[in-house]
Amino acid sequence: MDRQKGIDVLFNPRTIAVIGASETRGKLGNDVMRNLIESGYEGRIYPINPKSSDILGHRAYRSIIDIASTIDVAVIVIPAKFVLKAVEECGEKGVKALVIITAGFKEIGHEGQELEKKLVDLAEKYEMVIQGPNCLGIINTSSPYNASFSSGTPSKGTIAFASQSGALMTGILDWSLMEKIGFSKFVSLGNKAHLNEADFIEAFGRDPDSTFILLYIESVVDGHKFMEACRKVIPQKPIFVVKSGVSAAGARAASSHTGSLAGSDTAYDVAFKQSGVRRANDMAALFDIASVFDDMYLPSGNRVAIVTNAGGPGILTTDACEASGLDIAQLSSQTIEFLKENLPPAAAVYNPIDALGTAQPEDYGLCIEAALRDENVDSVLVLLTPQAMTKETETAQVIVDAHTKYPDKPLIAVFMGGNSMVYPRIVLTEGHIPVFDFPERAVHALAELYKYTVSRDSLRDESIPKFKADKKKVEKIISDVRKDNRRVLLGNEAHAIAEAYDIPVAKIRLATSSEEAKNLAEELGYPVVLKIASPDIVHKSDIGGIKVGLKTPEEVEAAFLQILDNAKKHMPKAIIYGVDIQEMAETGKELIIGCSRDVQFGPLIMFGAGGIFVNYLKDISFKLAPMTRTDANELIMETKIGTLLKGVRGELPSDVIAIEDTILKISQLVTDFEEIVELDINPAFAYDKGKGVSAVDVKITIGG
Amino acid sequence: MDRQKGIDVLFNPRTIAVIGASETRGKLGNDVMRNLIESGYEGRIYPINPKSSDILGHRAYRSIIDIASTIDVAVIVIPAKFVLKAVEECGEKGVKALVIITAGFKEIGHEGQELEKKLVDLAEKYEMVIQGPNCLGIINTSSPYNASFSSGTPSKGTIAFASQSGALMTGILDWSLMEKIGFSKFVSLGNKAHLNEADFIEAFGRDPDSTFILLYIESVVDGHKFMEACRKVIPQKPIFVVKSGVSAAGARAASSHTGSLAGSDTAYDVAFKQSGVRRANDMAALFDIASVFDDMYLPSGNRVAIVTNAGGPGILTTDACEASGLDIAQLSSQTIEFLKENLPPAAAVYNPIDALGTAQPEDYGLCIEAALRDENVDSVLVLLTPQAMTKETETAQVIVDAHTKYPDKPLIAVFMGGNSMVYPRIVLTEGHIPVFDFPERAVHALAELYKYTVSRDSLRDESIPKFKADKKKVEKIISDVRKDNRRVLLGNEAHAIAEAYDIPVAKIRLATSSEEAKNLAEELGYPVVLKIASPDIVHKSDIGGIKVGLKTPEEVEAAFLQILDNAKKHMPKAIIYGVDIQEMAETGKELIIGCSRDVQFGPLIMFGAGGIFVNYLKDISFKLAPMTRTDANELIMETKIGTLLKGVRGELPSDVIAIEDTILKISQLVTDFEEIVELDINPAFAYDKGKGVSAVDVKITIGG
Repeated sequence: MDRQKGIDVLFNPRTIAVIGASETRGKLGNDVMRNLIESGYEGRIYPINPKSSDILGHRAYRSIIDIASTIDVAVIVIPAKFVLKAVEECGEKGVKALVIITAGFKEIGHEGQELEKKLVDLAEKYEMVIQGPNCLGIINTSSPYNASFSSGTPSKGTIAFASQSGALMTGILDWSLMEKIGFSKFVSLGNKAHLNEADFIEAFGRDPDSTFILLYIESVVDGHKFMEACRKVIPQKPIFVVKSGVSAAGARAASSHTGSLAGSDTAYDVAFKQSGVRRANDMAALFDIASVFDDMYLPSGNRVAIVTNAGGPGILTTDACEASGLDIAQLSSQTIEFLKENLPPAAAVYNPIDALGTAQPEDYGLCIEAALRDENVDSVLVLLTPQAMTKETETAQVIVDAHTKYPDKPLIAVFMGGNSMVYPRIVLTEGHIPVFDFPERAVHALAELYKYTVSRDSLRDESIPKFKADKKKVEKIISDVRKDNRRVLLGNEAHAIAEAYDIPVAKIRLATSSEEAKNLAEELGYPVVLKIASPDIVHKSDIGGIKVGLKTPEEVEAAFLQILDNAKKHMPKAIIYGVDIQEMAETGKELIIGCSRDVQFGPLIMFGAGGIFVNYLKDISFKLAPMTRTDANELIMETKIGTLLKGVRGELPSDVIAIEDTILKISQLVTDFEEIVELDINPAFAYDKGKGVSAVDVKITIGG
Repeated sequence: MDRQKGIDVLFNPRTIAVIGASETRGKLGNDVMRNLIESGYEGRIYPINPKSSDILGHRAYRSIIDIASTIDVAVIVIPAKFVLKAVEECGEKGVKALVIITAGFKEIGHEGQELEKKLVDLAEKYEMVIQGPNCLGIINTSSPYNASFSSGTPSKGTIAFASQSGALMTGILDWSLMEKIGFSKFVSLGNKAHLNEADFIEAFGRDPDSTFILLYIESVVDGHKFMEACRKVIPQKPIFVVKSGVSAAGARAASSHTGSLAGSDTAYDVAFKQSGVRRANDMAALFDIASVFDDMYLPSGNRVAIVTNAGGPGILTTDACEASGLDIAQLSSQTIEFLKENLPPAAAVYNPIDALGTAQPEDYGLCIEAALRDENVDSVLVLLTPQAMTKETETAQVIVDAHTKYPDKPLIAVFMGGNSMVYPRIVLTEGHIPVFDFPERAVHALAELYKYTVSRDSLRDESIPKFKADKKKVEKIISDVRKDNRRVLLGNEAHAIAEAYDIPVAKIRLATSSEEAKNLAEELGYPVVLKIASPDIVHKSDIGGIKVGLKTPEEVEAAFLQILDNAKKHMPKAIIYGVDIQEMAETGKELIIGCSRDVQFGPLIMFGAGGIFVNYLKDISFKLAPMTRTDANELIMETKIGTLLKGVRGELPSDVIAIEDTILKISQLVTDFEEIVELDINPAFAYDKGKGVSAVDVKITIGG
């Protein structure tokens, strides 16, 4: 069965069976039954319990098989060991969707994992969808129905929320009831054995009752499906994610620069960014954003007007705006003239507009409306402090009226105060004006709305460029390395792979004797570079394994012997294949271009300032492959060296197109060959515009 | 009169006169009178109003002169034009401290500024202190007394708060009453004509009722006094500052790298850091910190134990800790064994300690106590989500009991939820356990406490090194440049100044003809560098004004002519003094060392990665002069190039001591000569350890 069709049934079932329903308070099967009844579910409820004939006023059945009518959804709350049989029966009965609340599967280890696998097999066999197992259940406030063991049902609203932690969900539910935050859907993901975050994101995207999607996840099941679902939904609805486990670094052994510089969480960060998802690290702040989103249209730009009755809070707000990437709007001369005519002479008529401590509701009204009318303004923040002559409630009403008159631009209130602001805040909230007690939270929420529009608009339908490549040659090299029982490629092998993908690379040949070294140097042309060829020696320069600028056969011979000596001295146990003889590339701007592979999201491409100090400078950025040309350009320009490559201080610009090409070819190579787990080009030299790039040192590691 | 003695009287007056007291509701003089009476002030109140004989039950006087007894404090709320006379009378009467609420001084322009000056003169003449003018007044909750026109009096607490914005203060007061946050002192700084932030910081430092100092400022009156006051107080009490106006950049024209890289707010940031003050940008968060500080001892380290009944929130908290600079404690094996024995097998006994969703109050108790006992743990965060078997209130009590048993370590609760947490939160608050609804705010508050201890401990009593210097020579050069009506020094002048302070510098001589150029090159020794000598040409390399590596007289002659040609072509209006001939320094690691001058805090020293890309790399850090050797070392090590200078990847370390010396000598130079408003050494070359530093290009600008 199509998963989305399954979720449609799950969201709006006509009949629900509760397998494990119970009359006994404190049992989960009792909680689920009561929630279903109390949430006002209008379909038919079928409790299943072999020991009862009636549960909470509903006729109970021994087994789902015994029910005559069709069952859309079955909620399973029986012990784990009985679940498989129940699922089999649900399949036979033709149930479309299962909510398995029962714990004791993957989370308890190998045995549970096996059991969970069998669940999924049954789901596939009978074309059912499964939510869970080990979850809290599901709540749809529009249907309405609550098939969970939560205590209480959330208020109706437009936030669709899915969470990988059931406990977090219960906390948020309880909190939301006090804070009066509403939800459209409330989904506990549990172990995600069958349905996962990507399925629910897509379903939330199609759900007319949901306008704002909020996720708490600790991992994703399938990186590509997740990104695909997000990219599909983002143009219509914002997705905000709290992804925890940032710090559970898990020191992964990485031999490449790229591998060591990409933290365990980098791929998630990059994946969110590339699919338009906003990442947050503060749960409470997310609900601020949701509340603003709920009430307001999105801003069409980042220019904010501030209206205030006090200077200090105005400056604080200005600071917060600039720190959040919002601009203080430059008011039109028309607005400024209007304000000059209508405000006292001491008022500030530029932005922030300070209507002074004596500001009356009508003063606020004219300032706010002038700001909302101004085409240089995208949104308006209204600050109010309780001063002697301040009329808080009347001013609140004026703000509501202004919004009714000019509903297109976000209008947010910051009423700084406590008890004296209680009633004004009610006026604002009922008038659909988001209201905050300090400027920072308001600015943060507004900035996030704006950033969502930027993320959304940055999603492009651009094709992935394809370059000509000799795949056969790469296959051959990799298979030879495998036969040799190695994972780290020798320099000449790595360079040959790069060449096969038309990456401009310094030519390299392996010499096993000083005689051969001299001949190869002659063939490549002087000057040459000599490098130790050993899969065991990663940082060659550290042990004196590199000699550059060799101009004569004598120098080549001496360097050959010296390098072997150095290697033996510093790493006596390293396997030495010989010495690579390499043509000497003209020096350019030093770059690093590399790739590591994320278990969820695949090849992660790194670009940055190269050379031996890569790990100290950390002037790097990341994107996931495959990439478009715009992606490649962004990857370059996100770094400081990217700015330098454009040509500054009278320097000629570098060949950015050639760098983009190189990034795109690497992206293609590592997408074609999953075997390549790590790749570093460091340095690559970038030359002046039109003069290309040269990969000087290419390192490749293949998977086991 | 000593300002601190004046503030002592201001904090605890035995008698208060209200000049401008009024019977009429809505008048400030009425608000002040009512606040004084309602706050429970136990001293005698003397209303001054020529038109009344009795105000709010207190006998009124025509003038302060008419009162027989001594008056400690006079609050002035009459129109600005009458203030001067009233202050004069207060002086004659022997009043010790004035609170001038009246507005209409500096803030209205020149005329007001003159009036304000006269106020200060009178204060000095009669040895009084003045708070304000243009302020809200002052509140001392311990005395108690409220001599302000605020609406309401804050609760008693231990936060001393001073604010440059009266409106912000009223908002916070109102909010604090709702949020149940208490204050010891509440001071509105107003125009700071006489008493300013530094005076109140020192007074708060001495005040036994205040344990936590909080400031809102837009500027400081005297940078050095401010820093001195903070450094005096920080060892006893934390100071948190919200400094607004970060973004009011005010594009200051700066010709040096240092000047252009130091934003208008950099000096404040650096001054706060160097004096141990924590800067915050979120008002609400500050009160979180205050609440934790109020209840708990300071943590003795950054190792946190987390006790939870759910995995998800535990991971979120772990992330928040690591993002805030707190470490997840590694529990002792003893603790781990104890937990293993006492918790169910599925519980997580490492950190975070997950006592599972079934955790009962006694489970929480044993986990918390074990964590508090563990010497690897500096503080404990307890998370609770409302699950089926959770006993919220009993668990709250267990936390309170654990704190009573082990009061030395901070213990903070995060009870995630809303209505079901209302009563448990009361239990915690009454038991002096700070409680939050989401982990992030709790972690942030705890981290700030820890960071305060770090700031506090970093304040050292280390002397400022003094190097031998030829001050006379510098005076002579500066005076010659002045006579020449210039502000930008020529290369040879700047280098001579550096030499006078024993800064290792490349020798430089000015040539005005090609013949002279050749002779000077001979004298300095080949190879040499030629540079255009013009105060109008700042970025010499951009216009072809520098030629390096000249090895023969012929090359020098050609370069001399070419440079003059280039200068004429690119900057035809520039005044050309000739061409500087400079000895060619051996290349080393490129550094920049510079100085700009902040109007409040004086010389601001910059160090970083040098060369022509300084503005793009922005690998720089700042400190205020004068500096200790530790300061200089920190300045270096805060940059990425600092790490490289220590010697990485098998490279030899650079001569860090010589770099420190150079920084310290510059620090001494710009402290000695206030005339030097900007100084750049870029590049300075750093050589291997023991081989020193060489300043290759020194630029100096003097004040007008």
